[in-house]
Amino acid sequence: MPLACQDAFDWIDEEARRRERAGLVRALRPREAEDGADGAGSLDLAGNDYLGLTRHPEVTAAAGAAAARWGAGATGSRLVTGTTALHAELEAALARFCGFEAALVFSSGYAANLAALTALGGHRDALVVSDAGNHASIVDGCRLGRAETAVVPHADPEAVRKTLAAHPGRRSLVVTDSVFSVDGDAAPLGALAAVCRAAGAALLVDDAHGLGVLGDGGRGAVHAAGLAGAPGTVATVTLSKSLGSQGGAVLGPARVVEHLVNTARTFIFDTGLAPAAAGAALAALGVLEREPERAARAREVASALYEGLTAAGLTAARPDAAVISVRAPSPEAALRWAADCRAAGLLVGCFRPPSVPDGVSRLRLTARADLSDRQVRAAVRTVLATAPTGAAARQETTPP
Amino acid sequence: MPLACQDAFDWIDEEARRRERAGLVRALRPREAEDGADGAGSLDLAGNDYLGLTRHPEVTAAAGAAAARWGAGATGSRLVTGTTALHAELEAALARFCGFEAALVFSSGYAANLAALTALGGHRDALVVSDAGNHASIVDGCRLGRAETAVVPHADPEAVRKTLAAHPGRRSLVVTDSVFSVDGDAAPLGALAAVCRAAGAALLVDDAHGLGVLGDGGRGAVHAAGLAGAPGTVATVTLSKSLGSQGGAVLGPARVVEHLVNTARTFIFDTGLAPAAAGAALAALGVLEREPERAARAREVASALYEGLTAAGLTAARPDAAVISVRAPSPEAALRWAADCRAAGLLVGCFRPPSVPDGVSRLRLTARADLSDRQVRAAVRTVLATAPTGAAARQETTPP
Ligand SMILES: Cc1ncc(COP(=O)(O)O)c(C=O)c1O
Ligand SMILES: Cc1ncc(COP(=O)(O)O)c(C=O)c1O
Repeated sequence: MPLACQDAFDWIDEEARRRERAGLVRALRPREAEDGADGAGSLDLAGNDYLGLTRHPEVTAAAGAAAARWGAGATGSRLVTGTTALHAELEAALARFCGFEAALVFSSGYAANLAALTALGGHRDALVVSDAGNHASIVDGCRLGRAETAVVPHADPEAVRKTLAAHPGRRSLVVTDSVFSVDGDAAPLGALAAVCRAAGAALLVDDAHGLGVLGDGGRGAVHAAGLAGAPGTVATVTLSKSLGSQGGAVLGPARVVEHLVNTARTFIFDTGLAPAAAGAALAALGVLEREPERAARAREVASALYEGLTAAGLTAARPDAAVISVRAPSPEAALRWAADCRAAGLLVGCFRPPSVPDGVSRLRLTARADLSDRQVRAAVRTVLATAPTGAAARQETTPP
Repeated sequence: MPLACQDAFDWIDEEARRRERAGLVRALRPREAEDGADGAGSLDLAGNDYLGLTRHPEVTAAAGAAAARWGAGATGSRLVTGTTALHAELEAALARFCGFEAALVFSSGYAANLAALTALGGHRDALVVSDAGNHASIVDGCRLGRAETAVVPHADPEAVRKTLAAHPGRRSLVVTDSVFSVDGDAAPLGALAAVCRAAGAALLVDDAHGLGVLGDGGRGAVHAAGLAGAPGTVATVTLSKSLGSQGGAVLGPARVVEHLVNTARTFIFDTGLAPAAAGAALAALGVLEREPERAARAREVASALYEGLTAAGLTAARPDAAVISVRAPSPEAALRWAADCRAAGLLVGCFRPPSVPDGVSRLRLTARADLSDRQVRAAVRTVLATAPTGAAARQETTPP
């Protein structure tokens, strides 16, 4: 006999109570336009606007101009009415800048990863080899695809080699973040590429946190590793971090892009990226090409933050790009730490389970190219002054 | 011994050749700003801009103003820095307009559906009952979730009832498009809701093609069925069709929204919707509230297109909203038909396998509230004049 519930969603209340007991409730906190803006409100070390381009006048003006010229929306999926000449221009610019033959733009980096994994690793007989620290959108792409997925230990090319060797003759795709979003560490791309080449496997690199920060003039981690345009190599990027906009892209050989156009469900059945977002990303790319020093400055700021925090005894991973991850003793302590920073005018990220694969809660700071040395020092001071007991082994050390 | 390929992507060429042989190659065709715009270029009956709002000056100006005020991107995921006061305002406006307690905005309707299905139907012991004609994003949401999915025949409440009865005591979620994107027919929402209530199942309705077109002043199909705000009922919408922008939303009880904030991966791990898109959608909602007659006009245009085409003998499904689907004798004929329309200045959609569940190729026309009667007559004339042999049983009949 069917169980006629009072309300089909009553189970949700139970889960909410469980979250509350575990201290893991998340809530949205709308920000005002002044927050994180230069000279007013609080200092933003929580967002992923690594190059400080999201409020750049050229970039915001390009968003407005694109909406005025093309309309506020793409009006349809990319294969119907959703491809404008602006989308084509952005794709050509991204491919050229990053050193790939072709590019395909999506409504988000998430959708780009789902597309790449389902279209390139979606074959029933295929094998996808995925780093244990990969981003949620890669994990979901693996789940959506029909391939067998082997999860390998983090940043371990030898484990990848062994896994590929254990499946000889299988069509294989190795997938990794270039810079891992939680700890900010870089993947061993050169070693992974060598392993892939030897085994005839394809390599997919999510360069979300590398584009704009790593490589010559911010061309990304794949470019820095000499892998841009290499056979069997595909990258995904997002337009929502260094490029200050929204959207994502897959970069690779033209035949891979054509394959995605014909088979990727998050491409075929999704409305095209809004013209304003495409125009803003294109303008941001233009600023970066003209001012390549922004990439180096973002890395310099990251180093300065890391040095300042670890010199005072905090535990952080040495940043390979613009993400600095600082360990907290518990989820509650991390939450309070971030709240105390916010109260002191500093926005920082807070990663707690289930967003962290290893269960370790963290403060997450992001470097921005447009931060001054003074702002960096002030940020370090605030993080140290609010650090919970147990976060720093040598907290008595004077900060720089 | 591992098979060392020349290039790990050589298999893609084979698939491309197979597509070519089957006549199923798709290619992007970038449009110019003039295409589909009023008074210039071609007439657009292919996009989903049902209310003609994507180029509305208030809507495009709002996009530009939001980018100027908030920046070109949200800068982070919604739980970190990606929620602005503008996002909160849009969510409140959507919830109020559609008659739900709360709303949560995503970067696309696709992401909203993935979130709703994985968060509400993602439990291992849950059962998701999904209409065979549901949109790709719902199908992918079912695949991503961990629930068992039962696919039921199209628009068949009795089949849903039997499926639920066969799984007594299971936490169940019934999911359906409100208006199906291929044939433009409406789901039997009232009957489905009754079946769900009787079995204690939740109901999830994707109102992507209903919002702005159906219901009082365009409040959508769920509102029209008297189900807005009903217990156990959740709707998803997209901001990319009637609202002329980009993005999506889940509408439902506040506890469901809170549950999504805490558990939905395409919410937690995706950058927030760009402010320009949020601002444009909010402005479009404002225009619609002020000019509710746009919804009725879109339906009127759809009826006129249907009447004109079927009176001349074409086979089309009677449109329940703004989508008119016309059968073509073959994929090749559909493609040529659409190309001939385009050559004659009329943009229409063309659905071919694998985008059509039943394998029947179709021309897809969409009504727009801003089309004049003259434009509707011209469109009908063009579709008839280019119709392939076999499309119309009584093609000699004079069009109106
Ligand atoms: C490594 C990585 N990949 C992909 C994404 C998804 O990109 P988007 O936010 O543009 O959807 C993110 C973050 O949002 C990320 O950190
Ligand atoms: C029924 C339906 N649901 C969801 C979507 C996805 O919405 P979006 O394009 O905003 O991702 C679409 C079309 O794109 C659709 O037709």
